[in-house]
Amino acid sequence: MGLLNKNPKGVKLIDNLQFDEKGLIPAIAQDADTGEVLMLAYMNEEALSRTLSSGEAWFYSRSRQELWHKGETSGNVIKVRSVWKDCDSDTILIIGQPTGPVCHTGNKTCFFQQLTEQDLPSSHPK
Amino acid sequence: MGLLNKNPKGVKLIDNLQFDEKGLIPAIAQDADTGEVLMLAYMNEEALSRTLSSGEAWFYSRSRQELWHKGETSGNVIKVRSVWKDCDSDTILIIGQPTGPVCHTGNKTCFFQQLTEQDLPSSHPK
Repeated sequence: MGLLNKNPKGVKLIDNLQFDEKGLIPAIAQDADTGEVLMLAYMNEEALSRTLSSGEAWFYSRSRQELWHKGETSGNVIKVRSVWKDCDSDTILIIGQPTGPVCHTGNKTCFFQQLTEQDLPSSHPK
Repeated sequence: MGLLNKNPKGVKLIDNLQFDEKGLIPAIAQDADTGEVLMLAYMNEEALSRTLSSGEAWFYSRSRQELWHKGETSGNVIKVRSVWKDCDSDTILIIGQPTGPVCHTGNKTCFFQQLTEQDLPSSHPK
Protein backbone atom coordinates (compact mmCIF):
# COMPACT_ATOMS: atom_id res chain seq x y z
CA MET A 1 0.00 0.00 0.00
CA GLY A 2 2.77 2.40 0.97
CA LEU A 3 4.64 1.58 -2.21
CA LEU A 4 1.57 2.14 -4.34
CA ASN A 5 1.22 5.58 -2.86
CA LYS A 6 4.75 6.60 -3.75
CA ASN A 7 5.79 8.03 -7.06
CA PRO A 8 8.95 6.64 -8.68
CA LYS A 9 11.16 9.03 -6.75
CA GLY A 10 9.80 7.73 -3.45
CA VAL A 11 8.14 11.03 -2.57
CA LYS A 12 5.04 10.48 -0.47
CA LEU A 13 1.76 11.91 -1.71
CA ILE A 14 1.48 14.09 1.34
CA ASP A 15 4.80 15.80 0.59
CA ASN A 16 3.31 17.46 -2.44
CA LEU A 17 0.29 18.94 -0.74
CA GLN A 18 -0.18 22.64 -1.33
CA PHE A 19 -0.94 24.26 1.98
CA ASP A 20 -1.78 27.95 1.57
CA GLU A 21 0.16 30.88 3.01
CA LYS A 22 -1.53 30.25 6.37
CA GLY A 23 -0.52 26.58 6.32
CA LEU A 24 -4.06 25.42 5.57
CA ILE A 25 -5.73 23.29 2.92
CA PRO A 26 -9.50 23.08 2.34
CA ALA A 27 -11.09 19.73 3.17
CA ILE A 28 -14.51 18.63 1.95
CA ALA A 29 -16.40 16.04 4.01
CA GLN A 30 -18.83 13.75 2.19
CA ASP A 31 -21.22 11.21 3.68
CA ALA A 32 -20.01 7.74 2.67
CA ASP A 33 -23.52 6.29 2.76
CA THR A 34 -25.75 9.00 1.30
CA GLY A 35 -23.18 10.79 -0.87
CA GLU A 36 -24.26 14.13 0.59
CA VAL A 37 -21.61 16.83 0.78
CA LEU A 38 -21.61 17.69 4.48
CA MET A 39 -19.22 20.57 5.05
CA LEU A 40 -16.03 22.32 4.03
CA ALA A 41 -13.43 23.09 6.64
CA TYR A 42 -9.66 23.60 6.71
CA MET A 43 -6.80 21.38 7.84
CA ASN A 44 -3.22 22.11 8.76
CA GLU A 45 -0.62 19.35 8.56
CA GLU A 46 -1.32 18.22 12.11
CA ALA A 47 -5.08 17.95 11.48
CA LEU A 48 -4.49 15.88 8.36
CA SER A 49 -2.02 13.70 10.17
CA ARG A 50 -4.45 13.08 13.03
CA THR A 51 -7.27 12.37 10.56
CA LEU A 52 -5.19 9.76 8.75
CA SER A 53 -3.93 8.12 11.90
CA SER A 54 -7.00 8.29 14.16
CA GLY A 55 -9.75 7.46 11.66
CA GLU A 56 -11.81 10.48 12.75
CA ALA A 57 -11.91 13.89 11.07
CA TRP A 58 -9.76 16.66 12.52
CA PHE A 59 -9.68 20.21 11.20
CA TYR A 60 -8.07 23.53 12.07
CA SER A 61 -10.56 26.11 13.26
CA ARG A 62 -9.75 29.42 11.61
CA SER A 63 -11.98 31.34 14.02
CA ARG A 64 -10.63 29.74 17.17
CA GLN A 65 -7.16 29.30 15.68
CA GLU A 66 -6.73 25.83 17.10
CA LEU A 67 -6.84 22.17 16.17
CA TRP A 68 -10.41 20.99 16.11
CA HIS A 69 -11.47 17.41 16.63
CA LYS A 70 -14.84 17.52 14.86
CA GLY A 71 -17.49 16.35 17.33
CA GLU A 72 -15.32 16.92 20.37
CA THR A 73 -18.07 19.04 21.92
CA SER A 74 -21.22 17.81 20.15
CA GLY A 75 -20.28 14.16 20.11
CA ASN A 76 -20.97 14.12 16.37
CA VAL A 77 -17.70 12.90 14.94
CA ILE A 78 -17.00 11.87 11.35
CA LYS A 79 -15.64 8.32 11.09
CA VAL A 80 -13.26 8.34 8.14
CA ARG A 81 -13.61 5.71 5.41
CA SER A 82 -11.12 7.20 2.95
CA VAL A 83 -9.14 10.38 2.30
CA TRP A 84 -8.31 11.77 -1.13
CA LYS A 85 -6.36 14.67 -2.59
CA ASP A 86 -7.17 16.40 -5.84
CA CYS A 87 -5.12 16.59 -9.03
CA ASP A 88 -3.27 19.75 -8.08
CA SER A 89 -2.87 18.72 -4.45
CA ASP A 90 -4.61 21.74 -2.97
CA THR A 91 -7.85 20.18 -1.72
CA ILE A 92 -8.65 17.18 0.50
CA LEU A 93 -11.78 15.04 0.31
CA ILE A 94 -12.81 12.98 3.32
CA ILE A 95 -15.38 10.28 2.75
CA GLY A 96 -16.81 9.25 6.06
CA GLN A 97 -19.69 8.38 8.28
CA PRO A 98 -21.02 11.14 10.54
CA THR A 99 -22.36 9.89 13.86
CA GLY A 100 -24.88 12.76 14.02
CA PRO A 101 -25.77 16.07 12.35
CA VAL A 102 -22.60 17.67 11.05
CA CYS A 103 -23.84 21.25 11.10
CA HIS A 104 -23.88 23.40 14.25
CA THR A 105 -27.44 24.40 13.26
CA GLY A 106 -28.57 20.81 13.76
CA ASN A 107 -28.90 20.17 10.04
CA LYS A 108 -27.48 16.97 8.66
CA THR A 109 -25.38 18.94 6.19
CA CYS A 110 -24.12 22.53 6.25
CA PHE A 111 -25.48 23.02 2.70
CA PHE A 112 -29.18 23.51 3.35
CA GLN A 113 -29.77 26.93 1.78
CA GLN A 114 -30.36 27.02 -1.95
CA LEU A 115 -29.33 29.94 -4.15
CA THR A 116 -31.19 30.77 -7.34
CA GLU A 117 -31.10 33.49 -9.95
CA GLN A 118 -33.67 35.29 -7.79
CA ASP A 119 -30.97 35.84 -5.20
CA LEU A 120 -28.84 37.93 -7.54
CA PRO A 121 -28.85 41.67 -7.06
CA SER A 122 -31.53 42.68 -9.53
CA SER A 123 -30.03 43.81 -12.79
CA HIS A 124 -33.41 44.75 -14.24
CA PRO A 125 -35.15 46.97 -11.70
CA LYS A 126 -38.82 47.53 -12.48
CA MET B 1 -39.37 31.72 -5.10
CA GLY B 2 -37.66 35.07 -4.63
CA LEU B 3 -39.71 35.68 -1.53
CA LEU B 4 -38.82 32.30 -0.09
CA ASN B 5 -35.18 33.11 -0.51
CA LYS B 6 -35.39 36.37 1.37
CA ASN B 7 -35.10 36.68 5.10
CA PRO B 8 -37.64 38.90 6.89
CA LYS B 9 -35.56 42.00 6.28
CA GLY B 10 -35.61 41.40 2.53
CA VAL B 11 -31.87 40.74 2.32
CA LYS B 12 -31.07 38.31 -0.46
CA LEU B 13 -29.09 35.18 0.40
CA ILE B 14 -26.28 36.26 -1.88
CA ASP B 15 -25.79 39.51 0.05
CA ASN B 16 -24.52 37.57 3.03
CA LEU B 17 -21.90 35.56 1.20
CA GLN B 18 -18.45 35.72 2.73
CA PHE B 19 -15.98 36.33 -0.06
CA ASP B 20 -12.39 36.22 1.20
CA GLU B 21 -9.89 39.08 1.13
CA LYS B 22 -9.26 38.32 -2.55
CA GLY B 23 -12.98 38.47 -3.34
CA LEU B 24 -13.23 34.70 -3.76
CA ILE B 25 -15.34 31.92 -2.29
CA PRO B 26 -14.59 28.19 -2.63
CA ALA B 27 -17.09 26.23 -4.73
CA ILE B 28 -17.44 22.45 -4.67
CA ALA B 29 -18.86 20.73 -7.76
CA GLN B 30 -20.71 17.45 -7.26
CA ASP B 31 -22.08 15.12 -9.93
CA ALA B 32 -25.88 15.20 -9.70
CA ASP B 33 -26.23 11.65 -10.99
CA THR B 34 -23.39 9.72 -9.34
CA GLY B 35 -22.93 11.87 -6.23
CA GLU B 36 -19.18 12.00 -6.87
CA VAL B 37 -17.37 15.10 -5.68
CA LEU B 38 -15.75 16.35 -8.87
CA MET B 39 -13.61 19.37 -8.04
CA LEU B 40 -13.09 22.42 -5.88
CA ALA B 41 -12.53 25.77 -7.52
CA TYR B 42 -13.11 29.41 -6.61
CA MET B 43 -15.72 31.94 -7.64
CA ASN B 44 -15.84 35.69 -7.50
CA GLU B 45 -19.20 37.48 -7.53
CA GLU B 46 -19.27 37.60 -11.31
CA ALA B 47 -18.60 33.86 -11.65
CA LEU B 48 -21.39 33.06 -9.21
CA SER B 49 -23.73 35.45 -10.98
CA ARG B 50 -22.99 33.85 -14.36
CA THR B 51 -23.39 30.36 -12.89
CA LEU B 52 -26.82 31.22 -11.50
CA SER B 53 -28.01 32.97 -14.62
CA SER B 54 -26.48 30.78 -17.36
CA GLY B 55 -27.03 27.31 -15.89
CA GLU B 56 -23.40 26.35 -16.49
CA ALA B 57 -20.57 26.50 -13.96
CA TRP B 58 -18.26 29.52 -14.04
CA PHE B 59 -15.27 29.97 -11.77
CA TYR B 60 -12.44 32.43 -11.26
CA SER B 61 -9.05 31.00 -12.18
CA ARG B 62 -6.56 31.98 -9.49
CA SER B 63 -3.59 31.01 -11.68
CA ARG B 64 -4.76 32.84 -14.78
CA GLN B 65 -6.49 35.56 -12.75
CA GLU B 66 -9.52 35.63 -14.95
CA LEU B 67 -13.12 34.48 -15.19
CA TRP B 68 -13.23 30.86 -16.27
CA HIS B 69 -16.16 29.26 -18.02
CA LYS B 70 -15.50 25.62 -17.08
CA GLY B 71 -15.31 23.62 -20.30
CA GLU B 72 -14.71 26.66 -22.49
CA THR B 73 -11.61 24.98 -23.95
CA SER B 74 -12.26 21.27 -23.35
CA GLY B 75 -15.96 21.37 -24.14
CA ASN B 76 -16.62 19.62 -20.83
CA VAL B 77 -18.99 22.01 -19.12
CA ILE B 78 -20.95 21.40 -15.93
CA LYS B 79 -24.70 21.84 -16.41
CA VAL B 80 -26.02 23.21 -13.14
CA ARG B 81 -28.97 21.55 -11.42
CA SER B 82 -28.82 23.47 -8.14
CA VAL B 83 -26.56 25.80 -6.18
CA TRP B 84 -26.26 25.88 -2.40
CA LYS B 85 -24.42 27.91 0.22
CA ASP B 86 -23.30 26.57 3.56
CA CYS B 87 -24.42 27.61 7.05
CA ASP B 88 -21.79 30.30 7.49
CA SER B 89 -22.04 31.49 3.90
CA ASP B 90 -18.41 30.93 3.01
CA THR B 91 -18.68 27.93 0.68
CA ILE B 92 -20.75 27.19 -2.43
CA LEU B 93 -21.91 23.75 -3.57
CA ILE B 94 -22.87 23.23 -7.20
CA ILE B 95 -24.80 20.09 -8.01
CA GLY B 96 -24.62 19.49 -11.72
CA GLN B 97 -24.14 17.25 -14.68
CA PRO B 98 -20.67 17.24 -16.26
CA THR B 99 -20.74 16.70 -20.03
CA GLY B 100 -17.31 15.00 -19.90
CA PRO B 101 -14.33 14.39 -17.61
CA VAL B 102 -14.02 17.32 -15.23
CA CYS B 103 -10.32 16.94 -14.51
CA HIS B 104 -7.61 18.26 -16.83
CA THR B 105 -5.89 14.86 -16.41
CA GLY B 106 -8.83 13.20 -18.16
CA ASN B 107 -10.15 11.68 -14.95
CA LYS B 108 -13.85 11.93 -14.27
CA THR B 109 -13.14 13.60 -10.94
CA CYS B 110 -10.12 15.55 -9.67
CA PHE B 111 -10.08 13.36 -6.55
CA PHE B 112 -8.42 10.19 -7.83
CA GLN B 113 -5.43 9.91 -5.49
CA GLN B 114 -6.00 8.31 -2.13
CA LEU B 115 -4.05 9.25 0.97
CA THR B 116 -3.47 6.77 3.77
CA GLU B 117 -1.54 6.67 7.01
CA GLN B 118 1.35 5.28 4.93
CA ASP B 119 1.68 8.67 3.29
CA LEU B 120 2.50 10.42 6.55
CA PRO B 121 6.11 11.36 7.21
CA SER B 122 7.20 8.35 9.22
CA SER B 123 7.10 9.09 12.90
CA HIS B 124 8.58 5.71 13.80
CA PRO B 125 11.70 5.26 11.70
CA LYS B 126 13.06 1.73 11.78
